[in-house]
Amino acid sequence: MSTDIENRQFRLARRPSGLPEREDFDLTTEAVGPVGEGEVHVRIDYISLDPAMRGWMSSGKSYIEPVGIGEVMRAFTAGTVVESRHDDFAEGDHVTGLLGAQTHAVVSGDQLNKVDTSIVDLPVYIGALGMPGMTAYFGTLDVGEVSEGDVVLVSAASGAVGSLVGQIAKQQGASRVIGIAGGPEKCRYVVDELGFDAAIDYKAEEINDAVRRECPDGIDMFFDNVGGEILDAALANLRVHARVVICGAISQYNVTGHVGDTGYAPKNYLSLLVNRARMEGFIILDYIDRYHEAYPSMAEWIASGKLSHKEDIETGFDRFVEVLRMLYTGENFGKLVLKV
Amino acid sequence: MSTDIENRQFRLARRPSGLPEREDFDLTTEAVGPVGEGEVHVRIDYISLDPAMRGWMSSGKSYIEPVGIGEVMRAFTAGTVVESRHDDFAEGDHVTGLLGAQTHAVVSGDQLNKVDTSIVDLPVYIGALGMPGMTAYFGTLDVGEVSEGDVVLVSAASGAVGSLVGQIAKQQGASRVIGIAGGPEKCRYVVDELGFDAAIDYKAEEINDAVRRECPDGIDMFFDNVGGEILDAALANLRVHARVVICGAISQYNVTGHVGDTGYAPKNYLSLLVNRARMEGFIILDYIDRYHEAYPSMAEWIASGKLSHKEDIETGFDRFVEVLRMLYTGENFGKLVLKV
Repeated sequence: MSTDIENRQFRLARRPSGLPEREDFDLTTEAVGPVGEGEVHVRIDYISLDPAMRGWMSSGKSYIEPVGIGEVMRAFTAGTVVESRHDDFAEGDHVTGLLGAQTHAVVSGDQLNKVDTSIVDLPVYIGALGMPGMTAYFGTLDVGEVSEGDVVLVSAASGAVGSLVGQIAKQQGASRVIGIAGGPEKCRYVVDELGFDAAIDYKAEEINDAVRRECPDGIDMFFDNVGGEILDAALANLRVHARVVICGAISQYNVTGHVGDTGYAPKNYLSLLVNRARMEGFIILDYIDRYHEAYPSMAEWIASGKLSHKEDIETGFDRFVEVLRMLYTGENFGKLVLKV
Repeated sequence: MSTDIENRQFRLARRPSGLPEREDFDLTTEAVGPVGEGEVHVRIDYISLDPAMRGWMSSGKSYIEPVGIGEVMRAFTAGTVVESRHDDFAEGDHVTGLLGAQTHAVVSGDQLNKVDTSIVDLPVYIGALGMPGMTAYFGTLDVGEVSEGDVVLVSAASGAVGSLVGQIAKQQGASRVIGIAGGPEKCRYVVDELGFDAAIDYKAEEINDAVRRECPDGIDMFFDNVGGEILDAALANLRVHARVVICGAISQYNVTGHVGDTGYAPKNYLSLLVNRARMEGFIILDYIDRYHEAYPSMAEWIASGKLSHKEDIETGFDRFVEVLRMLYTGENFGKLVLKV
């Protein structure tokens, strides 16, 4: 069976320069291939849009091979099993996996995770319980080592990762959690919905003054998704033995197209010396073997409503590139997901 | 007694702008005060010149209070007990302590360490067995976490700290140790005397090309005393899970006079993200309670000749400022010490 079903795919046509454009992708159609022994045919229901995708489109040394020209764009997805020749999966099961920007996939069952949508909705498994949730959990606790009484600053605080970082820090006993976001609506959300102690609107305020005002005794942990001047403002206000967690640098990804080839250099880096502080990058893919450590706490916090999460669900497979661009222009609000 | 002895002192007259000048200090003379109960009168024989002294002269937030205007300049010293009213010290004992840029000091015995000059000469106790030695030991092993097979890069490799870092890394089983130094004489010393695998002459070579050539598979630990373009070249060549130890930034101290207010910002910092690497500053004063962990290994390595060390001993108390400046102009060769 399966072969009369059409699979539509966004394939990388060329490496973007700056912000990705529609012309950087080809929209192709092919028949879904036959399902071999041990394989599963998945109808993709949701495609996750993540800041890291910009890096995957660029050539050059990175933590993962770039997507090849002509290949289906790499993406996290959640879907429904259409046909299974793998013992662990049956028709109708919900699954997640790195299945790419396409409407269907036939893959080995070993590449899929079965998820229980009676507890939380399917899109949450690519959000608060997916890569963004795991990123927030390990970034805050393992790399950022947040402990009781800490002052925590988070950039992109209304985003998929940042929103969870602040809430996890609060669960861990942080004394004060400040979020940086763009615009009054996002700032209100960060304080009123997520329970941060304060928010800084980087579009309306001089960032150095605002960080100094909101963190008068300095910062113990800064979780950075943004880079640029925001990173410098945090560096200038570190406490002794502070941790700066470099999760991303979304302000910089589209400057040259290369992660690690930034347009902005942090002039206050010697604050690391004066404050015996540490700045450390991490990649969530390194933690896949440890996800099981995070699931019990995260699932409990989400189920009990202690962790608020918001999905920004856009609809229409054909809008993939348009929706992807929203990540880098700050238009999305919450975890950005494309409903196929 | 004591009061007929003259004490000569370099006192900070004003905060230097850029490289310290003679006019930034007053040379004063006063009688040595009476020795109270529990106190010791020390004749200072050697004054240590250390890069950190530039930061101590500047106002502004740092890891230690700045030297006040009119105060004796802070400095590590080694000397001989002239008179003691403390049970642990007797006339003729050799001691070290933070006694300042002066010829005599009367201090509480609790501020002094007695040292055994039958094992190594007195100046070594403010060098390889003093602050520079402890800095190299804890920076390499505790912060830098060097382990067997590591590729290690060290800036200011012929200096008091850097020369020991490379040798300690070798003792720890590093597979390749590369030093950066200025000029052919220092580079020869780094390879021939200290046993580094290679040296890069930053005055003669383009630093990026040279680091790439000498570390073709990347760097596991970079120990930085210099900052600026050298730091950026190292960042561009990190291995996964690399450690960048920020011990100092001597290229930057005299730009503005403030540590943490650097003239050069490292544009390759996102290499920390791609390589899940860590950049961490440390201050040796935080490790004073752990010096006892380092002494047995360091003393054994020095006594057995496994750690080569070189003191650059300049003579004449009056030359204090002139000799201090040699640190920042790269004129010294080995641990810079002023013989009083």
